Amino acid sequence: MRKLIISTVIAATAATGAFAQSPSDVAKARRAYFTLVGFEMSTLGAMAQGKIDYDADVASQAAKDLAALTGYTMSDLFAPGTSNDDLPGETRAEAKIWADMPGVQDKGMAFYQAVADLNAVAGTGLEALQPAVGKLGGTCKACHDDYRAKDF
Amino acid sequence: MRKLIISTVIAATAATGAFAQSPSDVAKARRAYFTLVGFEMSTLGAMAQGKIDYDADVASQAAKDLAALTGYTMSDLFAPGTSNDDLPGETRAEAKIWADMPGVQDKGMAFYQAVADLNAVAGTGLEALQPAVGKLGGTCKACHDDYRAKDF
Repeated sequence: MRKLIISTVIAATAATGAFAQSPSDVAKARRAYFTLVGFEMSTLGAMAQGKIDYDADVASQAAKDLAALTGYTMSDLFAPGTSNDDLPGETRAEAKIWADMPGVQDKGMAFYQAVADLNAVAGTGLEALQPAVGKLGGTCKACHDDYRAKDF
Repeated sequence: MRKLIISTVIAATAATGAFAQSPSDVAKARRAYFTLVGFEMSTLGAMAQGKIDYDADVASQAAKDLAALTGYTMSDLFAPGTSNDDLPGETRAEAKIWADMPGVQDKGMAFYQAVADLNAVAGTGLEALQPAVGKLGGTCKACHDDYRAKDF
């Protein structure tokens, strides 16, 4: 499994000074990333909950797309200076993210693992999809509970 | 190179009726996708234009992240009924996209190829980066010129 290296890459990138974007642009890109994650999760969640019919191809594609998103390095989306303290109204990302990178990294790894596990079963039937989506949703919630503000 | 299969997958997905999202959600996810593409292009463009220093690691990571995004299937981002005629003010995607899928597919393939070409050279120096970024930017512009409205 790909290793999540948010903290080390942030440090390396900060050292080069090669940030081309404003803090607002970073926050906007971060929200975009999680919008895409949520978009795929919405399909999978609806299927797991029986709101739409199970379809092996659609479930597999959504799982594969989440895997593609885990191939996108999140480090520059978590540049320092882009919390909701820094950018009120633009992001719900709490400053504690940057104070607890090991915790963020653990939760990110759990998300990556759950996406990998989901990919192994998404196309094999609704009964296998349901617990895998539930587990993945739990990894989303774990981060939201700890690091995301309720409102902007 | 990964094949762009927007039109065929749209047809397949539409046939299953397995759309969990509203047209507005689709347009929002589509904009999110291109926000991320633009975020990486912004770094690469700034570097190619000398606005920030060339850094092999940063350039390589941006190129790799664009490659990861090309691994995300765009088909469900182009669900029918999500043009700027359908959703005024929510998207700049013109209806001609859905009337010219072969043209969209050709331009998408050029984008994919340019991302692959960029990945081969991004870490090898500024002189190699510049034309590869220029070529990639040209593939972005080709779609924007033909299929994107100037304003919302």
